Amino acid sequence: MAIRILITGGTFDKEYDEINGNLYFKDTHVAEMLELGRCRLPVEIRTVMMIDSLEMTDEDRQIIVHNCLKVPEKNIVITHGTDTMVETASVLAAAVPEKTIVLTGAMIPYAFGSSDGLFNLGSALSLCQVLPPGVYLAINGRVFDWDNARKNRKTGVFEPLRGQKCSLSTDKSSSSE
Amino acid sequence: MAIRILITGGTFDKEYDEINGNLYFKDTHVAEMLELGRCRLPVEIRTVMMIDSLEMTDEDRQIIVHNCLKVPEKNIVITHGTDTMVETASVLAAAVPEKTIVLTGAMIPYAFGSSDGLFNLGSALSLCQVLPPGVYLAINGRVFDWDNARKNRKTGVFEPLRGQKCSLSTDKSSSSE
Amino acid sequence: MAIRILITGGTFDKEYDEINGNLYFKDTHVAEMLELGRCRLPVEIRTVMMIDSLEMTDEDRQIIVHNCLKVPEKNIVITHGTDTMVETASVLAAAVPEKTIVLTGAMIPYAFGSSDGLFNLGSALSLCQVLPPGVYLAINGRVFDWDNARKNRKTGVFEPLRGQKCSLSTDKSSSSE
Amino acid sequence: MAIRILITGGTFDKEYDEINGNLYFKDTHVAEMLELGRCRLPVEIRTVMMIDSLEMTDEDRQIIVHNCLKVPEKNIVITHGTDTMVETASVLAAAVPEKTIVLTGAMIPYAFGSSDGLFNLGSALSLCQVLPPGVYLAINGRVFDWDNARKNRKTGVFEPLRGQKCSLSTDKSSSSE
Repeated sequence: MAIRILITGGTFDKEYDEINGNLYFKDTHVAEMLELGRCRLPVEIRTVMMIDSLEMTDEDRQIIVHNCLKVPEKNIVITHGTDTMVETASVLAAAVPEKTIVLTGAMIPYAFGSSDGLFNLGSALSLCQVLPPGVYLAINGRVFDWDNARKNRKTGVFEPLRGQKCSLSTDKSSSSE
Repeated sequence: MAIRILITGGTFDKEYDEINGNLYFKDTHVAEMLELGRCRLPVEIRTVMMIDSLEMTDEDRQIIVHNCLKVPEKNIVITHGTDTMVETASVLAAAVPEKTIVLTGAMIPYAFGSSDGLFNLGSALSLCQVLPPGVYLAINGRVFDWDNARKNRKTGVFEPLRGQKCSLSTDKSSSSE
Repeated sequence: MAIRILITGGTFDKEYDEINGNLYFKDTHVAEMLELGRCRLPVEIRTVMMIDSLEMTDEDRQIIVHNCLKVPEKNIVITHGTDTMVETASVLAAAVPEKTIVLTGAMIPYAFGSSDGLFNLGSALSLCQVLPPGVYLAINGRVFDWDNARKNRKTGVFEPLRGQKCSLSTDKSSSSE
Repeated sequence: MAIRILITGGTFDKEYDEINGNLYFKDTHVAEMLELGRCRLPVEIRTVMMIDSLEMTDEDRQIIVHNCLKVPEKNIVITHGTDTMVETASVLAAAVPEKTIVLTGAMIPYAFGSSDGLFNLGSALSLCQVLPPGVYLAINGRVFDWDNARKNRKTGVFEPLRGQKCSLSTDKSSSSE
């Protein structure tokens, strides 16, 4: 079971420009991060765009939808800026019902050394292997259904809208095995 | 849903002794790693032991079993040396049937900067939230059922004994799509 | 022989704001860097200001001069933004003739993990112990007399105005000891 | 003025073997460290040997002497294990009187992320540009004459045998001020 990783940019992949002191995008670090994590999953990485999610348009989201539909893999991780991750997730939920899609991101650029990105990438890759078809967010160690998450802009932390965090975990706790 | 993290040592938490150049154990780095990962899950960390898994005895494994049974949490992550992780998993599978237990570890000590530990910890914490009761291994980005994994000592990589990697993913692929 | 370190800000000490994605100043990292470098010199650190050197005014430079004159130490390292480091050096050269002052900085914030700051700090602290009174720049592994350096804004690299890099090295090759 | 860097091994360049958990030598990291430090000095790097300095023989030291004499550069940095650095320095002092040689090392392998090596390398490269011919040790932010240093095996810290740390700094403090 190969996994598709679609790169869209976000804090995850921001770089520091030594000359002018600004942050910018160059290439994704995801392959390097997978190597660091000693990841042995068969993955296919495709850079779809490299943008700040605050600048993501409806058209951009259609490009992401198109990619999710077109790739042969049924399990997809999308790296994405956190600011509009929920919005993209809701577009995907409507347009791509038959795949397991996990969006993830970071609060700190990976290139800045102390990134939450590696931790979140581990979460997302694992979740997309075991969750049923649907759209999820993996961030801050948590798993959110696409329709039960929002980013708290003051704290930078993702929160559930309702009590439970993930439909699957609800299912599980009510089951017994 | 709080998650319990039980620390048993392993490469994960090895330190470098500057004076004599040897590796040794001091305190766990897991709390620090969770902070780095911006983890916002409610977790309880308990250091059960701090040993190389090659030195782990049957008695040590009973202490781990005892801890898994005794803690109130139903979702447990265990950090463990990779060399005998599978052995501990099989003891747990027989003794603790009603909890979701995910064992994880690392090939490189976290203190050495370029660790796969952060990536694996993200995997393990996510998986223990969504997998049904059972004992699993989360390593190299992969998910293994306890009875379908072995560490290849030559390559350092975990491999499935049979084709499929995780019962749940089997269920899923045979399900809706 | 204690060494005084005066902090003025610059890229050296910039932080990444996780919430809004901007760079800003909080506290200096120099004490932490010295610990990382296992530095065993007796040093006194004083934060004089925390600013981008492009915003440094004549008044700010007089505050730095005042501090250099007032501290009891005869050997001083100043961390400083690279953009106007040469300008501050020339003010110091006129105002503080009897001390050994070495200015240093970084192209990458220390907090971003891959900093040249630790390397440059090692240079500056060593040089201020052995150079005769005067004002010097320590950056890119090089030593510059205050009146023989400029920052190339395109490449971000410091260059000598004339051939030789440091008066002392000229002296040395002609001396024998 | 090009600088020669001679690599002899030591903690500086130790690696962690993921498979068996031991430390070993592969290639030097010095070129990578210079890039990280944005070093713009013309340097020539030569790996002379890759050994633990506790295993260094008299013959090994003669090879280092031979290299110091043979290379055209007059300014030489030697990376060296800390345990017998002083011994090698004394051999060099007798055999290579006309060059400026600075030995340096690290307490923590560079590959382990939090190394003092980058800091010490900055020191050594700067010092070998400005110190008169002679043999010096650059470590812990300090500069030692070859005949005035010992490693305290209990603390891992280098100490002067007598009061002053470096002949040049003695000269200086007695000079102008």
